[in-house]
Amino acid sequence: MNLLQFRSLAEKIFADVRELTFDGVGVTRESFGRGESAAGDYLRDLALSEGLEVQADRAANLLFRRPGAAADGPAVWVGSHIDSVPQGGNYDGLAGVVAGLLCMIARQREGSTEALPLETIAFRGEESAWFGKAYMGSSALLGKLTPADLELTQRATGDTLANYMEKAGADVAAIRAGEVLFDKSRIKAYLELHIEQGPVMVARELPLAVVSGIRGNVRHNHVACLGDAQHSGVVPRWLRHDAMFAVADLIMRLDEHWRVLLERGTDLVVTTGMVNTDPAEHSISRIPGRVNFSLEARSKSTDTLEAFYQLMHAECAAISRERGVRFEFDRRLLSDPATMDEGICKVLSNACAAQDVPYEVIPSGAGHDASLFANAGIPSGMLFVRNQNGSHNPHEAMEIDDFMLGVQVLSDTLDELPRART
Amino acid sequence: MNLLQFRSLAEKIFADVRELTFDGVGVTRESFGRGESAAGDYLRDLALSEGLEVQADRAANLLFRRPGAAADGPAVWVGSHIDSVPQGGNYDGLAGVVAGLLCMIARQREGSTEALPLETIAFRGEESAWFGKAYMGSSALLGKLTPADLELTQRATGDTLANYMEKAGADVAAIRAGEVLFDKSRIKAYLELHIEQGPVMVARELPLAVVSGIRGNVRHNHVACLGDAQHSGVVPRWLRHDAMFAVADLIMRLDEHWRVLLERGTDLVVTTGMVNTDPAEHSISRIPGRVNFSLEARSKSTDTLEAFYQLMHAECAAISRERGVRFEFDRRLLSDPATMDEGICKVLSNACAAQDVPYEVIPSGAGHDASLFANAGIPSGMLFVRNQNGSHNPHEAMEIDDFMLGVQVLSDTLDELPRART
Repeated sequence: MNLLQFRSLAEKIFADVRELTFDGVGVTRESFGRGESAAGDYLRDLALSEGLEVQADRAANLLFRRPGAAADGPAVWVGSHIDSVPQGGNYDGLAGVVAGLLCMIARQREGSTEALPLETIAFRGEESAWFGKAYMGSSALLGKLTPADLELTQRATGDTLANYMEKAGADVAAIRAGEVLFDKSRIKAYLELHIEQGPVMVARELPLAVVSGIRGNVRHNHVACLGDAQHSGVVPRWLRHDAMFAVADLIMRLDEHWRVLLERGTDLVVTTGMVNTDPAEHSISRIPGRVNFSLEARSKSTDTLEAFYQLMHAECAAISRERGVRFEFDRRLLSDPATMDEGICKVLSNACAAQDVPYEVIPSGAGHDASLFANAGIPSGMLFVRNQNGSHNPHEAMEIDDFMLGVQVLSDTLDELPRART
Repeated sequence: MNLLQFRSLAEKIFADVRELTFDGVGVTRESFGRGESAAGDYLRDLALSEGLEVQADRAANLLFRRPGAAADGPAVWVGSHIDSVPQGGNYDGLAGVVAGLLCMIARQREGSTEALPLETIAFRGEESAWFGKAYMGSSALLGKLTPADLELTQRATGDTLANYMEKAGADVAAIRAGEVLFDKSRIKAYLELHIEQGPVMVARELPLAVVSGIRGNVRHNHVACLGDAQHSGVVPRWLRHDAMFAVADLIMRLDEHWRVLLERGTDLVVTTGMVNTDPAEHSISRIPGRVNFSLEARSKSTDTLEAFYQLMHAECAAISRERGVRFEFDRRLLSDPATMDEGICKVLSNACAAQDVPYEVIPSGAGHDASLFANAGIPSGMLFVRNQNGSHNPHEAMEIDDFMLGVQVLSDTLDELPRART
């Protein structure tokens, strides 16, 4: 089946959704909010016009099916997410959903029958930028969203995730109870196409890559360092309890641990994405009495995450003693690393080879909904598409030719999968 | 003249002004804004009810006189400021103005004549918290507020200092032209009573202290560190240009220089009062591409300020090379250190001794309007009153008995000064 003929349709979909969710700088598709819903509505209308069926699942994600497919029969899911970070790029998430839809549209237009029916799922709420928690839509579906998660609040409005999900039509009571909201046994495989968010494929000139596994992470959305707010001119160094100097000290100690761990060949990245003195009271002439910050470590290894986490707490304790400050942590969030299914990786690799595309098998530094399916026991695979300038910024720049190659490989993989899995 | 009889009037004034400007946490008296004007209006009404005269000078500061005093004759000024930092304390600034008014009220009620008439001046805009520039009211009066200063914008509204001063009634054209807005030659001395903002007097159990000199400072209100905003999961350490790690690195290098300079006996304090990743784009999963921060160093020595400032720039250059970031600085602001007049210090000390008050002669870490008068060639002196919990916070806690002792010493000094100066 030739998918390359859908190039102009793909371009039109990306342009239309970008326009619907443009914020003046990049795109903004708030999890369970306006931009995300606008993207979902657009894709639903498109699918309906192509004769596909669309329904929301009990976590408010959108599920696309071909008419006549048995709702309770075995299926393959192709999925990704339709939200974005604030001022984000157009392709992070959306590309995977469009890829699935193009495969379905091609099959629907041809009237072809499938050995293992393809369904596309568009997840809501994958980005942690809005509620400080990632994979909300897929977690809810898998019964993995906790009551504490549901009380997380949106960064701008302060309203809870529970309220946002309720308004989007999710069955919050079932989610709160930890129910698995779909029949896991009928999903034989989960596939996800996604732009690469790092610089590896551009550097190595690879249009496509097969993902071997996904880094996990350990996070605190809100850590507070508390010192003493005092006039900056009058308190000598040894009497200060400067929360900002303490946080700078912590960051430099973590940077040094990170450097040493890398020299030992450990897989690790460390980020303090948000750091702020308190806007209600800070000034140029006041020693900061409070600094709020976020903390994240990612690794392919759960052991590395745990070891680094313990180091971090040890350094906080040392800094507290030395600088007379204290650290307050919110709930720790852990996302487990995941391994992609070896058989699916092989089919994806073969499909790349058959298209004569240079590709490699590489790990994913970023997290994806696919990791939840893999860790729930559903064989999963991911295909990366080359992308300039990284993601989570307005400058991401996937080339449409690379994308169409990915869609072709995905389609070929879907054709091959029923043979490979039996 | 016994000033201690005005204890309850002092308590009432402090309570009334606190109530007028309470913000739910501390007091907020915005420079050239609402809270400051409310305090000024209250003090004007009080002064008028006591038979004093009140006028605004051309910089919108309030000048209090006894009726019949020659407007162009020699005088002593007692002054301080009536603004506060956001969520600040009630006594920082206000105490000095109230002290001057109590001395005038006592003289007016007694009908006493003065060898050198006392005038009280209530400055607007002393706190740098609002426009990023300190001593605005006194600087304007002395012709030291530059056109660039007038373009500084208010932290909350973004409106310019020029507009704020204009609305408060100041002659902005004359200020912009650098005119000296009063006859300097007629002011024979400038005295300021102020709460101590540091912990020294509480620790040494001194109700009062005579100030020997005032630290100067060098500042940047806005420094930006610019790196690359990227997805936190996918960029390895050696490809990152993390603006937050770079700023943490800078702070720790400055902390180390500071420590070494102190070991050499240098007078120095260093503060980064405001540090913020960009709220428009930051998230837990994004490497910070921009960090905005303020930077301040204070010292009794101009040489130390200059040397530390050069060290800071050298470290920024090194960090830029090592971490692939760059630093952008706004205009450098320098406030010169000041020395108080020896003769006035002696009179203040004698007045303390005569009251049998334990006192010491100590330097001021914080800046004060008095430094501008001293550096303009007007003999100046300052009296500190003991104060718990520092200042620039809602917990400052001067005891009224200490304050009344200060008012008595101030009054005695005013009586003695004409003799001492001739």
